[in-house]
Amino acid sequence: MAEFTELSRSKSHGGSVVKYRHNSDVLGCAMQFSAFLPPAPGPRPVLFWLSGLTCTEDNFIQKAGALKKAAELGLLLVCPDTSPRGLGIEGEDESWDFGTGAGFYLDATAEKWKRYRMFSYITKELPELVRTHFPVDPARASISGHSMGGLGSLVCALRNPGMFRSISAFAPISNPIQCPWGVKAFTGYLGDNKAAWKDWDPSELAAKYEGPPISILVDQGSEDSFLHQKQLLPEALETAVAGNDRLNLQLRIQDGYDHSYFFIQTFIDGHLEFHARALST
Amino acid sequence: MAEFTELSRSKSHGGSVVKYRHNSDVLGCAMQFSAFLPPAPGPRPVLFWLSGLTCTEDNFIQKAGALKKAAELGLLLVCPDTSPRGLGIEGEDESWDFGTGAGFYLDATAEKWKRYRMFSYITKELPELVRTHFPVDPARASISGHSMGGLGSLVCALRNPGMFRSISAFAPISNPIQCPWGVKAFTGYLGDNKAAWKDWDPSELAAKYEGPPISILVDQGSEDSFLHQKQLLPEALETAVAGNDRLNLQLRIQDGYDHSYFFIQTFIDGHLEFHARALST
Repeated sequence: MAEFTELSRSKSHGGSVVKYRHNSDVLGCAMQFSAFLPPAPGPRPVLFWLSGLTCTEDNFIQKAGALKKAAELGLLLVCPDTSPRGLGIEGEDESWDFGTGAGFYLDATAEKWKRYRMFSYITKELPELVRTHFPVDPARASISGHSMGGLGSLVCALRNPGMFRSISAFAPISNPIQCPWGVKAFTGYLGDNKAAWKDWDPSELAAKYEGPPISILVDQGSEDSFLHQKQLLPEALETAVAGNDRLNLQLRIQDGYDHSYFFIQTFIDGHLEFHARALST
Repeated sequence: MAEFTELSRSKSHGGSVVKYRHNSDVLGCAMQFSAFLPPAPGPRPVLFWLSGLTCTEDNFIQKAGALKKAAELGLLLVCPDTSPRGLGIEGEDESWDFGTGAGFYLDATAEKWKRYRMFSYITKELPELVRTHFPVDPARASISGHSMGGLGSLVCALRNPGMFRSISAFAPISNPIQCPWGVKAFTGYLGDNKAAWKDWDPSELAAKYEGPPISILVDQGSEDSFLHQKQLLPEALETAVAGNDRLNLQLRIQDGYDHSYFFIQTFIDGHLEFHARALST
């Protein structure tokens, strides 16, 4: 049995915020994640939250103001870290948008980065840990995330038809093969074969998706500096989904909001309610 | 006119989270504070929040999950830092519970620490800045805080009868002259004359308070390690208030909660509603 340690536990809103550490077979290093265990008894539906560049397992659970509504809805939240850590790869800590804290939720193929396999970690190893250690209903899972984590929520769900009941994102990197962050990361993790990049691009995946119908909720602030820098490109996702009647996208441009957790705080309750509806049956 | 600079602004819950920097005449250094400006128009009531040891102007505004309710109630929040910074006093950065980040909301008398005057900053300079720069109703102010900041909210209000309409605190240091944190801080800031210490002790001040009647709401987690270490001593406050019919204390022991912001998150809405009632007329 792999090591699985509880690092801290705080009561909150009648439930518990708990941080865990475990040895990841997929990534080959110790990993941490945070969870919110709601007070409701019995097998709970689970929402996976994927954070953005530079974040850890702490950001969402501390700053999103999501726990009151999650307790009320009986949603179990799982918030993993954003990359492997401490693998000792040359240059892993040099950039804030590549390497440590910037795993991009893909499985790298470049030899140097081959242990960066956050996609497999999020979609295989982590759900298995959750099923083993928590009172969840494995048939009821949804996924959400912010920025790079919004990319992750879309990629993980669209590549695994049927695994998640609903998808949401705040300011997702929607078309990484066309933006500076994505080109840098994909060049590093996947190499120069751009045809392979499309397998990790939410808009490319949305155009080709052939799984069961699924709803996607996206909030995007109009004053998000990364939107203006064309890192996010939500219009590409909108165009891709328009051509695929298996996907139902609600893209809301929120006037005056930026890229911060103050934006996420404002709309998180609506996302939790969106997922709870999809998870209720 | 003193320098007063807006450092950042994010829209949240229809209002704005803003961080400011200004030169403090009282403290003799640059100071920062955060504010939440609710969407409601017109002169707003204001709630001052005082944070605990090691905190800055960021902790509450980022982690308390208070903004949704503050927006709904139309409360303007002001969250100052916890000490002067960068004064260059020998030893100011050596302890986490004394010096930088640990001003204890008093006016120091020891020569070495004479620029540590957080009490005057919070009760004179900061309210004046707030009145000058924000659409507040100066007659409607309340005060709250956490741990050392709970001590601060009680001391600032009890020493200034009529300045605040209501007082609340999460896990306040209620009787510092009897606990290790308080004895260390008061010895440093005030010297060895223990008679003078009583002027900065919430329980001592509560026993002697002769101002207009005022209500105090205190939440205390039963699993707070600092409660068990006898740093907080809420029973001393309870005893002092029991002998003073001008003070109405509701002390709630919250079963299973600790000292963290996950505890504050759980009960903050009730504190904001408590203050909004006192500020509504």
